[in-house]
Amino acid sequence: MIKITLPDGSVKSFEQGSTPMDVAKSISEGLARNIISASFNGLTVETSTKLTTDGSLVLYSWKNDEGKKAFWHSSAHVLAQAIEELYPKSKLTIGPAIDNGFYYDVDFGDESISDKDFKTIENKMLEIARGKHEFAMRSVTKADALSLYKDNEYKTELIENLEDGTITFCDHSTFTDLCRGGHIPNTGIIKAVKILSVAGAYWRGDENKPQLTRVYGTSFPKQKELTEYLALLEEAKKRDHRKLGKELELFTFSQRVGQGLPLWLPKGAALRERLENFLKEAQKKAGYEMVVTPHIGQKELYETSGHYAKYGEDSFQPITTPKEGEEFLLKPMNCPHHCEIYNSAQWSYKDLPKRFAEFGTVYRYEQSGELHGLTRVRGFTQDDAHIFCTPDQLDTEFKNVIDLVLYVFGSLGFENFTAQVSLRDPEKPEKYIGSIENWEKAEQAIINAAKDKNLNYVIETGEAAFYGPKLDFMVKDALGRQWQLGTIQVDYNLPERFDLTYKGSDNESHRPVMIHRAPFGSLERFIAILLEHTGGNFPLWLMPNQVSVLTLSEKYEKYGEKVLTLLENHEIRALVDNRSETIGKKIREAEMSKTPYMIIIGEQEEAENKISVRQHGGEDLGTISVDEFAEIVKTEINKTKKQF
Amino acid sequence: MIKITLPDGSVKSFEQGSTPMDVAKSISEGLARNIISASFNGLTVETSTKLTTDGSLVLYSWKNDEGKKAFWHSSAHVLAQAIEELYPKSKLTIGPAIDNGFYYDVDFGDESISDKDFKTIENKMLEIARGKHEFAMRSVTKADALSLYKDNEYKTELIENLEDGTITFCDHSTFTDLCRGGHIPNTGIIKAVKILSVAGAYWRGDENKPQLTRVYGTSFPKQKELTEYLALLEEAKKRDHRKLGKELELFTFSQRVGQGLPLWLPKGAALRERLENFLKEAQKKAGYEMVVTPHIGQKELYETSGHYAKYGEDSFQPITTPKEGEEFLLKPMNCPHHCEIYNSAQWSYKDLPKRFAEFGTVYRYEQSGELHGLTRVRGFTQDDAHIFCTPDQLDTEFKNVIDLVLYVFGSLGFENFTAQVSLRDPEKPEKYIGSIENWEKAEQAIINAAKDKNLNYVIETGEAAFYGPKLDFMVKDALGRQWQLGTIQVDYNLPERFDLTYKGSDNESHRPVMIHRAPFGSLERFIAILLEHTGGNFPLWLMPNQVSVLTLSEKYEKYGEKVLTLLENHEIRALVDNRSETIGKKIREAEMSKTPYMIIIGEQEEAENKISVRQHGGEDLGTISVDEFAEIVKTEINKTKKQF
Repeated sequence: MIKITLPDGSVKSFEQGSTPMDVAKSISEGLARNIISASFNGLTVETSTKLTTDGSLVLYSWKNDEGKKAFWHSSAHVLAQAIEELYPKSKLTIGPAIDNGFYYDVDFGDESISDKDFKTIENKMLEIARGKHEFAMRSVTKADALSLYKDNEYKTELIENLEDGTITFCDHSTFTDLCRGGHIPNTGIIKAVKILSVAGAYWRGDENKPQLTRVYGTSFPKQKELTEYLALLEEAKKRDHRKLGKELELFTFSQRVGQGLPLWLPKGAALRERLENFLKEAQKKAGYEMVVTPHIGQKELYETSGHYAKYGEDSFQPITTPKEGEEFLLKPMNCPHHCEIYNSAQWSYKDLPKRFAEFGTVYRYEQSGELHGLTRVRGFTQDDAHIFCTPDQLDTEFKNVIDLVLYVFGSLGFENFTAQVSLRDPEKPEKYIGSIENWEKAEQAIINAAKDKNLNYVIETGEAAFYGPKLDFMVKDALGRQWQLGTIQVDYNLPERFDLTYKGSDNESHRPVMIHRAPFGSLERFIAILLEHTGGNFPLWLMPNQVSVLTLSEKYEKYGEKVLTLLENHEIRALVDNRSETIGKKIREAEMSKTPYMIIIGEQEEAENKISVRQHGGEDLGTISVDEFAEIVKTEINKTKKQF
Repeated sequence: MIKITLPDGSVKSFEQGSTPMDVAKSISEGLARNIISASFNGLTVETSTKLTTDGSLVLYSWKNDEGKKAFWHSSAHVLAQAIEELYPKSKLTIGPAIDNGFYYDVDFGDESISDKDFKTIENKMLEIARGKHEFAMRSVTKADALSLYKDNEYKTELIENLEDGTITFCDHSTFTDLCRGGHIPNTGIIKAVKILSVAGAYWRGDENKPQLTRVYGTSFPKQKELTEYLALLEEAKKRDHRKLGKELELFTFSQRVGQGLPLWLPKGAALRERLENFLKEAQKKAGYEMVVTPHIGQKELYETSGHYAKYGEDSFQPITTPKEGEEFLLKPMNCPHHCEIYNSAQWSYKDLPKRFAEFGTVYRYEQSGELHGLTRVRGFTQDDAHIFCTPDQLDTEFKNVIDLVLYVFGSLGFENFTAQVSLRDPEKPEKYIGSIENWEKAEQAIINAAKDKNLNYVIETGEAAFYGPKLDFMVKDALGRQWQLGTIQVDYNLPERFDLTYKGSDNESHRPVMIHRAPFGSLERFIAILLEHTGGNFPLWLMPNQVSVLTLSEKYEKYGEKVLTLLENHEIRALVDNRSETIGKKIREAEMSKTPYMIIIGEQEEAENKISVRQHGGEDLGTISVDEFAEIVKTEINKTKKQF
């Protein structure tokens, strides 16, 4: 008999050789039906693997990330079999599970495939799946493995790099693949498949090696789930911030300026400024002080902070001066500069906390292949601030920062978020800088604050940075995708490295604690996420143009200007479209530019001194007075943007 | 007889051998008394030089820069004689006239001098001056010159580098110096002298050569002028922006961040922001659109613009990327980025002008020895904008820019300024890019605008940049010193290099014209000048803190907060000083921080619901209501900051 420990801590005895599926069945038939993969003592196993020792077992269903991984990994096998059957001359290479699906890199030889072939592949895959073939792992010798793949130089290369005795194959149906394991019980669970795209990919990612065809696919246990996923993909494509950024004329890129370096067009710059002013206003109330620091610093600054040792080699290289041989770095973060500002004066405990904030533009090298719109760039502006406080002030400061972050998220329509609290591994004290007392104080402060503010949080032990614990906010956007936004980090390291001090009430010199925080994270990434979350329909208060006044003909120009003045008196941002175009065209263009409200004016409106109002998306609010309309706008704004 | 042409164009005949002084006497005895130097055919001569050919003669008095130069050059001779008599072992080297005075570099051997010795030197100089010794030039052979200076290795080195036949000496009193000429008639004109300071200076500026003592002095024809100059120096020292910047906690420098890279402290950052918002508001009304661009650009961008070829070698060196070998430069100007923004869309003549504005931080290498506070830095923020317009729009655009610049200067208290219009040299058309028609159009536009706006302007022919004509504003500060602020430049070059186009009404592609303009020039330099101009007493509208409410004791805290709220309702920026300090100390500190108004509240004020108001500098405005006070503030603000 062996003892199996389950995640809830319960321990059960089973006969030696029982499988994860046997364990599932012993709990309930219902559970067994849902279990599609398992891990034993932290290692991925098959649901059919015979367990021979005591150990911890975790069972996964489709709902778990691990379950999905096994599902898509198994689907890649099915894809490979389909390709082998349809394209007998093709050579298979590797095919992993990825986020939301899988791919397989294939050498199609003289042949090539296109989207016209996708349906055939999908049908073949479904035919295989319906066979309910079980996946079975087996060990093979290196010699046997090489022999099976004697005509496939890719698999041969992979096998040659493996040690004899560690090589395993997976069989299902008539198909065999080199594989490390981790499958669903049988192919029958795969009910819906979709080949999404093909792309070129070099063997082993090396541009000097042969180019292969990467076939991307996804699969689901239910047709409905596939349909929903494809709808989501379609919606995500529409909301792609790169597409919307172009349509709404927010930003552009120039090859001559350089990749990953956005140029903000007037409408985008106005959007940025509105976000900055929104945060500035709240920060002012919260006692922050703005500072401005340069975008470069001497190498010595980053040697002091420790950043150079850690990132120097892989970053933008130093800038030298022609005669004096100085070395500067583009700043990858603002904290060292803020430490130098702190150090420019003497502080007493009565002066603390000092909260220095800056919309600081920083530059970090990313490989060009990694760049993506505004979410992966080489230059971005952090809504950065550093709080220098006494250890006793940490608790209050942390709570205040959370208030600010919640205010920001709330005002921008991110309702759905969780928090992750990253603490130290108490068993490895040597990994962390700072005294144990201070760590305990800081960790307790974070947990207290998270509780106090009713955050939906998870604690991750051992996930703290070496310099301090932190709290990260993960938001879900309208498409259910998760993004990391907003971070609050405690730092014991930089105060040490920069020798920051304050005079305590005991008249002695003490070390302050530092908090790094950025509710948006970066303006670039935040705007990208906000674009994808809202599809460009920002909260009304943020919209650069809230209202377009569309005249039915040029005759109503004067009335249009009058309406504009009235709107501006209500602090509503508006413009008049008095071109000699049809009202239909004017409405279409206003819709395209996501204008929240369209005001249509003609003879009747002018005669009655009223306006006809149409909402973005088509709802007609009727003919009302400007004052009534202003009330509607005010109510909508107050619904999202609260007072801080 | 020789023919002498005077600056007014008149030609007079004189006997050969007449001197400039003879010419002056022939005009009037009064003129002759004031003439202290002269130039003949463009070369500096003595007033006693015998003229032997026809030529153009200009006579200079103390009021001319050339007259001052001769005065201070002659004073340096007197200083040298005084030093030789007082310190017989010293060796003289060189001693030129400089702005506002002169210096002499001296090797004092074993001796040294300090400010204790200044009086003795001044007295000796005045004693020599009173001798009314005439300055007389004479030619000497190289051999004779070397013989006179056989014990002075410095003069020997100078003489050895001269060609025989070109060496001249100047004698006055018992003193002789190697000299190229240009003196006042006699030492008696020097009525007031002052030794200002001593400093170390390497022989020939080379740190590997011996260190000499540089003795700085100044001199005047009247004691009163010296007294006034010394008072000005004293005042300038008090207003030194580096000193005020520290006292008012506006900015700081950090050796670790790097020299010439200011860190803006909270109060300074708030001041910058206030200036930015002031200009943004006016720019918005003037139809500008803000953009945001990165602080780096690929080397290729600056090769396209031509900046790399011109400045590359002497600038901050390129930043490379670790793997991809790209090369980026810190941006020295914003125009190439703005050209790329222009190029990101197609424009029709109906879309123009486009006016892209950015508070763009740029980086330019300066040698560390050249750096000075905020006026010579390595990183600074330009209040930059580029207007892209058709040639026909240039006239109106130029006038509009002048309006904006005048609004800015007026609101910031710079009343005294002149404009310099720099045009091309029409005889050297090959020096300039762009068609003659366009140049004529642009130059006429600038001159028209200058006339139309009643500017006090001078035209400098041949001073235009190769890419276009320009207009620069020179302001005089409160101490009478002249600064170049604000520039407006026409550019035909970048539109060509970046291949900028718009579609004209003829449906053909045309080249737009570009205007570069920056009313402040740079925020750093502007704030430095504003600090020195106002001594830190900025116009009231710009003051970060306009009012300090000082409580007589902590009992009045509540009333203080009430007054603060009332002030804030009037949009007056104020703070309450309710510390347990004496009212005297509170007033002193508020004065130190240049607070324009102090409100003092105690028992009486609270009882009467009034406030006692004291202005910066001490004037008592009596006990009044907050509303009355708000009226005073409003009136003062409206006096400087007009509506744009």
